[in-house]
Amino acid sequence: MGTEFRYHRRVQFAETDMAGIVHFTSYFRYMEEAEHALWRAAGLSIAPSEATIGWPRVAAAFDYKRPLRFEEEFYVAVRISGVSNRTVQYGFTVMRADTVIGHGLLTTACVTKRPEGGMQSVELPEGLVERLKGAMTEQAPIEAIVRPTDS
Amino acid sequence: MGTEFRYHRRVQFAETDMAGIVHFTSYFRYMEEAEHALWRAAGLSIAPSEATIGWPRVAAAFDYKRPLRFEEEFYVAVRISGVSNRTVQYGFTVMRADTVIGHGLLTTACVTKRPEGGMQSVELPEGLVERLKGAMTEQAPIEAIVRPTDS
Amino acid sequence: MGTEFRYHRRVQFAETDMAGIVHFTSYFRYMEEAEHALWRAAGLSIAPSEATIGWPRVAAAFDYKRPLRFEEEFYVAVRISGVSNRTVQYGFTVMRADTVIGHGLLTTACVTKRPEGGMQSVELPEGLVERLKGAMTEQAPIEAIVRPTDS
Amino acid sequence: MGTEFRYHRRVQFAETDMAGIVHFTSYFRYMEEAEHALWRAAGLSIAPSEATIGWPRVAAAFDYKRPLRFEEEFYVAVRISGVSNRTVQYGFTVMRADTVIGHGLLTTACVTKRPEGGMQSVELPEGLVERLKGAMTEQAPIEAIVRPTDS
Repeated sequence: MGTEFRYHRRVQFAETDMAGIVHFTSYFRYMEEAEHALWRAAGLSIAPSEATIGWPRVAAAFDYKRPLRFEEEFYVAVRISGVSNRTVQYGFTVMRADTVIGHGLLTTACVTKRPEGGMQSVELPEGLVERLKGAMTEQAPIEAIVRPTDS
Repeated sequence: MGTEFRYHRRVQFAETDMAGIVHFTSYFRYMEEAEHALWRAAGLSIAPSEATIGWPRVAAAFDYKRPLRFEEEFYVAVRISGVSNRTVQYGFTVMRADTVIGHGLLTTACVTKRPEGGMQSVELPEGLVERLKGAMTEQAPIEAIVRPTDS
Repeated sequence: MGTEFRYHRRVQFAETDMAGIVHFTSYFRYMEEAEHALWRAAGLSIAPSEATIGWPRVAAAFDYKRPLRFEEEFYVAVRISGVSNRTVQYGFTVMRADTVIGHGLLTTACVTKRPEGGMQSVELPEGLVERLKGAMTEQAPIEAIVRPTDS
Repeated sequence: MGTEFRYHRRVQFAETDMAGIVHFTSYFRYMEEAEHALWRAAGLSIAPSEATIGWPRVAAAFDYKRPLRFEEEFYVAVRISGVSNRTVQYGFTVMRADTVIGHGLLTTACVTKRPEGGMQSVELPEGLVERLKGAMTEQAPIEAIVRPTDS
């Protein structure tokens, strides 16, 4: 699949750790930022002030290939990698130019808030997935642009 | 004033940065954690689920004397350093054993949430400050225990 | 397997988000804190100041079952769920009393730092895994204590 | 003084807390990001990989006027508000369009790292302050553009 949305970003100092590289938890922030930027690109907000539904995570994962360092520029490519009645799964690839930094997944459930504070899973809003896909553009597959000698 | 509450903590890896020391923003988390631990020691929660009032910050400041590093144990001494009709100011000293790491202040306003999302400053709950002070204990002043050769 | 290490913790305010629950990235911090506490319980530090090896993550994942909220007490149960020549995989379960909050995995590689800043994967220090396991204790399996009606 | 550098940013979900607003510690990240963006605008990096000097904070402070919320766009105006032989003090104003969100200060010392891990304060690199000021532009004073009825 070559259809994706790209979110561009630079590594901030507070995201590094004493090993001199980006702390492994920062990639989960990067994925979330890219997800929300995708929604904005589709003319939506994932958490408008008047929202009656929310999108808690069901699962999150990241595989680390190479580290990012302070001030490096990178982008997060987002795709929709799975859809069920009540969940959306996003697939992510973090790239520094044409070097793969890592791959990740976020699975999010659509829920309504119950008065007593709990959450109730509900069906995805109609047309949501199509609208998100509409904000993606055709891109050369990332695999094809990775230099074979890159390591 | 020798009356204070002490919150004990250890530096976590995610709190360090590429300079190999605790990132300067982490001290603001430490102060907040100590403030909330003080409330708990007084039998209170600063944000119970049924809360109608909240405690946004009006001002926050920290002066850094020495760095903390990964896994070091430290404590945050909390005092009430100022009270007005609608605000509480806490004074903090971060200590690693008898070495001063830094000093800070947090000024918090008591507010009610308005339906449209705004906040309205209101008077402090009666007896609050006395109750918080009741959770503090007499301690030797920190200045007196700092070793003169400490640098 | 009933052998595990338990790390006890309380939810801090800064770990929550505008949905009123612990932000999904905080669980990755919790897992890391538990991992490092396990090392300390085994008389080790994962990042002593004179370290020549480091432990970057190869993979991280978490499955969310129920949310945690401000000030709730919980623990993270850590097990060693996989070992290869050059990697250790930890399995985690986050529990609030006898309620499962979620499950996670961290896979870490043993590396040496190269002068030019890169990292080189190397074999695990001899006896490391045994030493970590020695800091774990036998526990009733978590599955057995989950109340069937818990939801 | 109307000479400043402006750093533009949007509030991310992970920066909010259960009160529904940006957590007070996030503003310290915003100030640091703006400081580092100023250095880049001046053709410099505050932490290049081969650095022999570093810039730990001596003091950090922020005064909060109004909250920021999820997805709001804002900018951080940076000025140099003080210089000594060995320190630089930056003054910051966080603005959402023409509404003042808050004001802050960061005082940073120039240090060399000592072999044993300590830090030694040293004189600022020659010409640094002029170079940073060269990356600032003349702006209408913020006070002049605040709408009188804004509150």
